[in-house]
Amino acid sequence: MARELTVSIDAMGGDAGPGVVVAALARSVLRHPSVKFILHGDEAELKPLFAKRAKLLDRVAIRHAAERVRMEEKPSLALRRGRNTSMWRAIDSVKTKEAEVAVSAGNTGALMAMSMFQLGTLEGISRPAIAALWPTKRGQSVVLDVGANVTASDEQLVDFAVMGEAFARAILGLERPTVGILNVGSEEVKGNDAVKGAAHILRNNPSLPMEFCGFVEGNDIGEGTVDVVVTDGFTGNIALKTAEGTAKTVTHFLRSALLHSLFGRMGAYIASGALNALRRKLDPRASNGGIFLGLDGVVVKSHGGADALGFASALDMAIDMAKAGVIARIVADRRGIKTLEPEAAAS
Amino acid sequence: MARELTVSIDAMGGDAGPGVVVAALARSVLRHPSVKFILHGDEAELKPLFAKRAKLLDRVAIRHAAERVRMEEKPSLALRRGRNTSMWRAIDSVKTKEAEVAVSAGNTGALMAMSMFQLGTLEGISRPAIAALWPTKRGQSVVLDVGANVTASDEQLVDFAVMGEAFARAILGLERPTVGILNVGSEEVKGNDAVKGAAHILRNNPSLPMEFCGFVEGNDIGEGTVDVVVTDGFTGNIALKTAEGTAKTVTHFLRSALLHSLFGRMGAYIASGALNALRRKLDPRASNGGIFLGLDGVVVKSHGGADALGFASALDMAIDMAKAGVIARIVADRRGIKTLEPEAAAS
Repeated sequence: MARELTVSIDAMGGDAGPGVVVAALARSVLRHPSVKFILHGDEAELKPLFAKRAKLLDRVAIRHAAERVRMEEKPSLALRRGRNTSMWRAIDSVKTKEAEVAVSAGNTGALMAMSMFQLGTLEGISRPAIAALWPTKRGQSVVLDVGANVTASDEQLVDFAVMGEAFARAILGLERPTVGILNVGSEEVKGNDAVKGAAHILRNNPSLPMEFCGFVEGNDIGEGTVDVVVTDGFTGNIALKTAEGTAKTVTHFLRSALLHSLFGRMGAYIASGALNALRRKLDPRASNGGIFLGLDGVVVKSHGGADALGFASALDMAIDMAKAGVIARIVADRRGIKTLEPEAAAS
Repeated sequence: MARELTVSIDAMGGDAGPGVVVAALARSVLRHPSVKFILHGDEAELKPLFAKRAKLLDRVAIRHAAERVRMEEKPSLALRRGRNTSMWRAIDSVKTKEAEVAVSAGNTGALMAMSMFQLGTLEGISRPAIAALWPTKRGQSVVLDVGANVTASDEQLVDFAVMGEAFARAILGLERPTVGILNVGSEEVKGNDAVKGAAHILRNNPSLPMEFCGFVEGNDIGEGTVDVVVTDGFTGNIALKTAEGTAKTVTHFLRSALLHSLFGRMGAYIASGALNALRRKLDPRASNGGIFLGLDGVVVKSHGGADALGFASALDMAIDMAKAGVIARIVADRRGIKTLEPEAAAS
């Protein structure tokens, strides 16, 4: 019988500290009865958290790490000085293959830098990307890159398309995901060289395991026009945070509009069940976590401000990815795409 | 006495046709009792629209233009063949100074190309930008560029900062607008070379007529963290459309959440006044129009799908901009910014 799936966790990342991580673990062991966990962090802080949860320790191994990466630390510094941090050790467990996946709520830039350094990128992939699950009218879509890089070439956008497609097949259960490249218009002539070049490569590879739909615009993300939205990390990060801000602004306006009148307050009271359902739908904790794709190992970044519910979602995502074999799919699918000659790409 | 302010209008742009434009004019003449209008378009189509509004013709001059720019036409083609179009003629009235401002609901790319060709850019400005008014928790902010260009250098981002600041002072009535550059993080080390270079130039020009606040992130737009948000046209266009899509998705979720339960439906019925107020707040018609900044003349683009209310808002904006002398302010403010030596900028 194969070894049980093991999840390696950075217990010291995130704004809330290890208490949230242990509370998330208490949920996760129930949801995933055959999964084991390795918890990297300060033993003196971690042990007391298990005082009333001694049974958890049957499934959770604590590994002492004396240091931690600070949330505001520069990734380059963290990388240089970080061998004794809980974050480094969490990734190291994946590198040494004692765990299949690593999860951290810590500093995103440092986590990406350490993951790149320790795990490297997959065959055929030049740079990793961070993918986000985005709630849409039709369900959810995968958007990437949302912040691993500040630029992307045409070939890198093609990598992102493959990574997003493989993820969508494995995690969203889609047989042949639809893929679009984010642009300022849907016409072929619009956009910068990178998006035009990537679209050209994908259009000229007819036997893809995805349905390439050309360009999509910002409003198509929320509509759910395609399952996978491909963009560079600068634009994707700004689009993601703009959407989060807009959702907050709209619910702020909704609250003011309702509280402004007696009828509004009455209506809000009567409809409070429905309004709470809306809040849950928009709750970032439910689809929490940035997924690092393109690395030779599964690493999931939980939101820094996540509570136990949010961190548990990130653990779910990591476990699902390991079980679905997302990495093997990415490698196989990337091999199937032929790079076009520069002359052809420029035509 | 100075000549009355005159607005030149492309009557044939937009999806809805000239009927909407004439209905908007009927509103606008009441709001602006001393303004005159020149309406460029197909006389045979326009004249019948005034049959029941003959009095309007005291203030509106109809100028025949035999052709029109199609909504899907390539800007380069429109520019080559377009001298007899209503759009070209509308801009020409500004060039010949018989009108102060031009308004069109037509093809954005063609309108920008023709405006650039006929009016040129202002002294010190290398490229124009399209600005949008964005509803925020604190009121509204100016975001630019939202689509005139697909790239922007550091110097061009500085131009945009000046243009947005001058616009905010003139139209939003702010004495010293706060300005931020959109980025993937607020730390100085983050982002691409263009945003870092622009921030460096603005930080090293202490006597600006704006309060430069460094970098802001996507969620800061809806928060209203700064009055003016500066970005390249690729990112800005995607952020704007992502926000529009998100607002639609959230109200879609709200509607489903309310209709899902009897209490929800009752609450929605009782709160319908408040919910309608929310809809008006989010209605893109109320802050309709993309403002072209950096041209040697005022041109306002109304939304292609605008109705009479939307087109009338675009006319309001154009008239306000002419009265406030936005162009003169941009020229004066741009002169006040010294370009840094490349060595200094790279440090």
